[in-house]
Amino acid sequence: MVRRTGRRPGNPDTRDAILATARTAFAEKGYDGASIRHIATGAGVDPALVHHYFGTKDKLFLAAMNSPMDPGVVIPQALAGDPDAVGERLVRLFLSVWDSPAGNAGVAMLRSAVSSEWTARLFREFVVSQVLRRVRDLVPMSPEEAPLRVSLVASQLAGLAMARYVIKVEPLASAPPEVLVAAIGPTIQRYIHGDLPGAWPTDPKPPSD
Amino acid sequence: MVRRTGRRPGNPDTRDAILATARTAFAEKGYDGASIRHIATGAGVDPALVHHYFGTKDKLFLAAMNSPMDPGVVIPQALAGDPDAVGERLVRLFLSVWDSPAGNAGVAMLRSAVSSEWTARLFREFVVSQVLRRVRDLVPMSPEEAPLRVSLVASQLAGLAMARYVIKVEPLASAPPEVLVAAIGPTIQRYIHGDLPGAWPTDPKPPSD
Repeated sequence: MVRRTGRRPGNPDTRDAILATARTAFAEKGYDGASIRHIATGAGVDPALVHHYFGTKDKLFLAAMNSPMDPGVVIPQALAGDPDAVGERLVRLFLSVWDSPAGNAGVAMLRSAVSSEWTARLFREFVVSQVLRRVRDLVPMSPEEAPLRVSLVASQLAGLAMARYVIKVEPLASAPPEVLVAAIGPTIQRYIHGDLPGAWPTDPKPPSD
Repeated sequence: MVRRTGRRPGNPDTRDAILATARTAFAEKGYDGASIRHIATGAGVDPALVHHYFGTKDKLFLAAMNSPMDPGVVIPQALAGDPDAVGERLVRLFLSVWDSPAGNAGVAMLRSAVSSEWTARLFREFVVSQVLRRVRDLVPMSPEEAPLRVSLVASQLAGLAMARYVIKVEPLASAPPEVLVAAIGPTIQRYIHGDLPGAWPTDPKPPSD
């Protein structure tokens, strides 16, 4: 008999039950609302087993989404360095992941995200908790502006993935990565650091007098 | 008995057979390769009946896609006017269609496009023949640059639709349209008219000597 070792310990049925329960919990309660304890109860196992199999809540979420990479690792790498070139670095990183064999898992995530309201909610929780919060926490931005800025970044990168890997609009679908880094990098740069005139009212409530 | 009049003449079964055959033809042969004669043969009807039901090949494609609007009408409207504000006008037009009840049909098109390779091909033919070609034909751009420019525009608008209407990333999902016009309009403007340094080699082949 071969014993499975390394990253995927344990009974496959138990793992799958935990992952299925985790997907439901993250979609229905959101990342912050879902707890390992609650997920363990739903899957009929001890919380210690979930920790043993998957480690942290972040890692459990990655496994539940079949994420092709760990945003907790790659995003800090992309954001480190010259702030004036952060847009180009993010586009380059994005393309390097999606152009690799891991990109198939990305397309599968995107297809799943679009297939129903429920899977869209799960994907949104993933993007917000694993990607957008990290960008927001690592890049100096004013707290009022940060949420819109990072959701604009998400819109351009999601559209890049759609156009290049799903819809395959030419010549974007087969353009060399550096062509797209030069074209789209400045968009991301402006969304993060640029002037977005009138993009947010300083206060949505009228001043009291 | 009520006789159906106006825009949807004829036997519903015959109409549906023509639309199903048209979807296959547009996906498999592309917009240019598909002909009304071929589609009529596939559906077992006379080409004159297809013309009678649907009019032009463009209109047949719109009907086959359940398109919420006719790009042949709205795009020329958006592109007319000050060239320095074409980006803002395109974003404003895009949001006005998608924020309206017609937006549900747009989301359905997007969901369908992502669901399989086949539907992605159909959607790509639609976007290229009905949307991107019109933008390219109506906006002065150099012929070498136009294809990449319009596919970049498509990437940002597809991502806006994904982020606002499908994934619903906040605050982008509920931002007032003019906030997004101010934020995303300049991106579209730059993709159409701006400087995209290094984005295309002048000639992919090495010069002969």
